[in-house]
Amino acid sequence: KTDFNIAVLPGDGIGPEVVNESIKILNAIAEAFHYKFEFKQGLVGAEAIFQTGNPLPDETLAICKESDAVLFGAIGDPSFDNNPDAKVRPEQGLLKLRKELGLFANIRPLQTYNSLIEKSPLKREIIEGADIQIFRELVSGIYFGEKFTDEEAGYAYDICKYNRDEIVPIIHMAFQEAQKRRKKLTLIDKANVLDTSRLWRKVCKEIAAEYPDVELDFMFVDNAAMQLILNPKQFDVIVTENMFGDIISDEASVIGGSIGLLPSASIGNGNAMFEPIHGSYPQAKGKGIANPIASILSTAMMLDYLKLDHAAEKLRESVEHAIENKYVTIDLNAEQPYSTSEVGSFISDYI
Amino acid sequence: KTDFNIAVLPGDGIGPEVVNESIKILNAIAEAFHYKFEFKQGLVGAEAIFQTGNPLPDETLAICKESDAVLFGAIGDPSFDNNPDAKVRPEQGLLKLRKELGLFANIRPLQTYNSLIEKSPLKREIIEGADIQIFRELVSGIYFGEKFTDEEAGYAYDICKYNRDEIVPIIHMAFQEAQKRRKKLTLIDKANVLDTSRLWRKVCKEIAAEYPDVELDFMFVDNAAMQLILNPKQFDVIVTENMFGDIISDEASVIGGSIGLLPSASIGNGNAMFEPIHGSYPQAKGKGIANPIASILSTAMMLDYLKLDHAAEKLRESVEHAIENKYVTIDLNAEQPYSTSEVGSFISDYI
Ligand SMILES: CC(C)[C@H](C(=O)O)[C@@H](O)C(=O)O
Ligand SMILES: CC(C)[C@H](C(=O)O)[C@@H](O)C(=O)O
Repeated sequence: KTDFNIAVLPGDGIGPEVVNESIKILNAIAEAFHYKFEFKQGLVGAEAIFQTGNPLPDETLAICKESDAVLFGAIGDPSFDNNPDAKVRPEQGLLKLRKELGLFANIRPLQTYNSLIEKSPLKREIIEGADIQIFRELVSGIYFGEKFTDEEAGYAYDICKYNRDEIVPIIHMAFQEAQKRRKKLTLIDKANVLDTSRLWRKVCKEIAAEYPDVELDFMFVDNAAMQLILNPKQFDVIVTENMFGDIISDEASVIGGSIGLLPSASIGNGNAMFEPIHGSYPQAKGKGIANPIASILSTAMMLDYLKLDHAAEKLRESVEHAIENKYVTIDLNAEQPYSTSEVGSFISDYI
Repeated sequence: KTDFNIAVLPGDGIGPEVVNESIKILNAIAEAFHYKFEFKQGLVGAEAIFQTGNPLPDETLAICKESDAVLFGAIGDPSFDNNPDAKVRPEQGLLKLRKELGLFANIRPLQTYNSLIEKSPLKREIIEGADIQIFRELVSGIYFGEKFTDEEAGYAYDICKYNRDEIVPIIHMAFQEAQKRRKKLTLIDKANVLDTSRLWRKVCKEIAAEYPDVELDFMFVDNAAMQLILNPKQFDVIVTENMFGDIISDEASVIGGSIGLLPSASIGNGNAMFEPIHGSYPQAKGKGIANPIASILSTAMMLDYLKLDHAAEKLRESVEHAIENKYVTIDLNAEQPYSTSEVGSFISDYI
């Protein structure tokens, strides 16, 4: 297969700017490798609310479902965050999209770049050589459980619920990834307090029997939040439920030196979506200072997923070339910063 | 008041060893300042299960309720953690104790010691001068909501529920503490996803009107987990719900350089409990290598609470003296380590 339909959802804040650079690069790849990428844009998030009243218009969902893969920018807007009463919220669009596409596994690889290691708040000896892959469950748990607010009585609740069959597939995925790597899997949970965590632990233990070559251990989320900083090299593959994964994976981004570099893939049931882990960063919107590399490396994960291995390799090599030559945005090079589009062009020219 | 009833709950693992040093020190303080501390011991945790079948025997609870303050060691045992089916668990004892004593606020001060700053995985310039006070809600949320497991059907749930009146008192406490400090309060939540978080945000905004001199801001927990490491100095007082507080405060312990140094106080409704934030650390049990300073500094917080200000000051001075003279356990001084009881004696002799 050489022709692909790519759904493009730029979203809010710096989303459109960074996704633009990914498109630029996919065009360069199409030319170099003789592929064809057809792009269809869709509205999502605050932008979609402003234009249509709906954070995930049906048309956007349809574009995504027909696509081979979705490129996603970012979502979120301060005008909603500071208004606890807003009934329609940008994040609902992202959550619904994840659910509708069945994207049950969010995968975040974390590595360090030698030339950027000094950027990390952590000491070189702590992070050098760290290489972690986080699998976060993405379509269940407290994110999708029933929620309720009773204004009058003055209470609210959120239900965290997991079924066995929501846990099984991601555990298998994580074990299989561990087999390809250093053969160590850590389940992060709070099994000393939560029933759902005890279910995760139980299911994980059962499945472990099928992967005798992988060493499995368990870690409470509070301890894990500490261990990730004290000694990140102890981790190989991590698997965890939705909310813990949200917290742990953002925290772990400090290991890589910059959140502006970190890609993610969300996979499931024949659909796949690729997005930088950084958010919409509204303060930087339109200034041309946003780091496009996280979006570009998410695009590399998309190429992996589409089995375009050579193209993915070439793209990663180009990104490393840009980083090594300090052809990067202001967050990584304050002395001689390049703009979002200059960095994208440098990488696409190299391809 | 010069006579005090202190309930002592050593608990599991290294709990008894570190609590012993706190008692040693309270005896020294009693002598130096002419106070009287009467100690009553109670069983709790795995120890209590082994001896009585109950992680919090009624007698223990009674001792605590009659006391002026509770000194707590640690809780937890690997034989329970690895058994998801255990119906009686050590942690239930701690959770029930918190609930029965109404300890709604867990307070964790975080500072750096100049002579230990190199111990942190974080760079000196990131942490030097950081000074954070975390207020964690301790008797509600997902810890205490209804939980349920249906083995047959293969699902489990945990409910996170908050009432307004469970949020109000700790928010006031946190604002009042911020007024005494750098006048900045950060509420950590996940208001872009959770109804309970939106309730926290709403209540916090309302109460803010009573503290116009305090700057209030909001941060999503995923971002906060990152910001605590990227730039801990941006925080003054933090307030958050139970589960987020559990994760964030253990994570933040890396700022102080060692979890072996960090005390906590749990306050509410006329009762108060003081415990090191480290756990039962079963691997170190009985070896005389556990760092007693977190327990000793928790004792200093107890002296604050009992309004024995001079004694508290003297105790903190003695701890700093021990740290500066490297009279510390192996976690902080691998070359010339002192034992748990040597460190305790050094500090109590100084008093
Ligand atoms: C925007 C928000 C709803 C989302 C989440 O919490 O999942 C984001 O933080 C993420 O991690 O992709
Ligand atoms: C032992 C456990 C139940 C407890 C908690 O999660 O509250 C501990 O981690 C703590 O922070 O005191």
